[in-house]
Amino acid sequence: MTITATQSVAAPGGAGSTGWERLSLNTRTTASWTLREAVEGAARAGLPAVGLWRDRLEEAGVDEAVRVLADSGLRVSSLCRGGFLTGHDDAALDDNRRALDQAAAVGAPELVIVAGGMPDRDLRGARLRLADRIADLAPYAADRGVRLALEPLHPMYCADRAVISTLGQALELAAPFLAEQVGVVVDAFHVWWDPELADAVAAAGRAGRISSYQICDWLVPIAADPLLSRGMMGDGVVDFGYLTELVTAAGYRGDIEVEIFNQEIWDTDPAAVVDSMKERYRELVLPGLRSGA
Amino acid sequence: MTITATQSVAAPGGAGSTGWERLSLNTRTTASWTLREAVEGAARAGLPAVGLWRDRLEEAGVDEAVRVLADSGLRVSSLCRGGFLTGHDDAALDDNRRALDQAAAVGAPELVIVAGGMPDRDLRGARLRLADRIADLAPYAADRGVRLALEPLHPMYCADRAVISTLGQALELAAPFLAEQVGVVVDAFHVWWDPELADAVAAAGRAGRISSYQICDWLVPIAADPLLSRGMMGDGVVDFGYLTELVTAAGYRGDIEVEIFNQEIWDTDPAAVVDSMKERYRELVLPGLRSGA
Repeated sequence: MTITATQSVAAPGGAGSTGWERLSLNTRTTASWTLREAVEGAARAGLPAVGLWRDRLEEAGVDEAVRVLADSGLRVSSLCRGGFLTGHDDAALDDNRRALDQAAAVGAPELVIVAGGMPDRDLRGARLRLADRIADLAPYAADRGVRLALEPLHPMYCADRAVISTLGQALELAAPFLAEQVGVVVDAFHVWWDPELADAVAAAGRAGRISSYQICDWLVPIAADPLLSRGMMGDGVVDFGYLTELVTAAGYRGDIEVEIFNQEIWDTDPAAVVDSMKERYRELVLPGLRSGA
Repeated sequence: MTITATQSVAAPGGAGSTGWERLSLNTRTTASWTLREAVEGAARAGLPAVGLWRDRLEEAGVDEAVRVLADSGLRVSSLCRGGFLTGHDDAALDDNRRALDQAAAVGAPELVIVAGGMPDRDLRGARLRLADRIADLAPYAADRGVRLALEPLHPMYCADRAVISTLGQALELAAPFLAEQVGVVVDAFHVWWDPELADAVAAAGRAGRISSYQICDWLVPIAADPLLSRGMMGDGVVDFGYLTELVTAAGYRGDIEVEIFNQEIWDTDPAAVVDSMKERYRELVLPGLRSGA
């Protein structure tokens, strides 16, 4: 499989380093930009990578996306998303195989999997079906050199979006598979509250299963639309220094994606959003990369 | 301490049973009723118990509440709430001691503790201060024959309301104390999503620490005000048969409180709400009491 290049800088953000060697712009953060605009915007800002959502990828077309990415020299840190694997039939598998094909085509080493919610009140059943469908997809993913990156979502989304609710649960689902085939996503917004967080991040690191570290903040109060409650780092309650230390101490050296769903941020000039995210990253995340290393 | 009487009926809801021997009306469910109206309304409906919130108790006055309760013959299943113990000073302890005095006065065996949120970004610090304050309060509670009932709240409330986010975490906080002094609340709305739920409920039962079983449903989508997203049993995604079986198999034989925060329900005639809750309890909860026993 394609492995995201480990950065060779001696000290993150130190001498000879721009500080942005691992900072990736997720296309959701700059939602009004097309794929080309996002890639060019990230490149202009000196970022080395983008995280892609399939809406922007499919809008551009995979061939065009490959050209734009090659022209820019940027990495793709992940493709988002596959998943929604909890239904009573196998209908979602085809779409997941398409997503894996797309990930392979654009060189995304990780396909983020949002599990899917509950089609009925049987949560345990939904979780068991999910495990079966991961087993169905794992060989197809491995053949394409793409890892299934299981993303625990905050428990407030358990009913309607993702029945994977904790990092520990994601690791249990991943355990039957090779670490190169199934990993887990550490997304600050989804996991910051977890009393078992430190142990789970360390376990994910030991298992070699941290697929992605995604960042954005938990806003208080929660937005009226809970899907849009993600904020710029520093605008909420997450201690990014601590979380970044945990992830770094667990051995993660891959890209760090900023993925924000927030109407106010979407209504802001995307280039200004990228500037703001660089500034907050430097202030809040870089210190954790140093102290956790 | 006062122990809530274990029901002597052979089969819950079976011959010789009304089915309501353990059903308790929490005063929040019928928010427009005064304490007297709630107690009389519960008695008229054939219920044996009420769960009190302090707003209604203090409005009536403790002496009047004691008279009203004695006249009705109803039990008090719990008093809600103490807590908010995560601040940087000890200011909340006085109020918690008052709450314990009130609980003792009205014969509430359990004081529900809502931990409190994060005064800053240091979640671990808030959780450590909470543990210290529980230790401060436990002897005072024990002297009054009242148990501190630690309530894990859904992780969406971690930042601003309760840093206890899972039943397992509540049990760890309770572990240093005698089971008669510190217990845990199993509130369906808060815990239904937890991948570790079955193990945690069983562990709580083995430890003799289940202070209360509270029920209401998780609505989809979440209400714009997340505090008002609790629904009548059956209106959301919670599998009450399963959860009630878990709690019953864990040995819990105390009262089952219906505690609903929901504007639509608050706008409904409270007597009709009580009728509806009895009907849903019979349909969704009683079967779990039988199969879990």
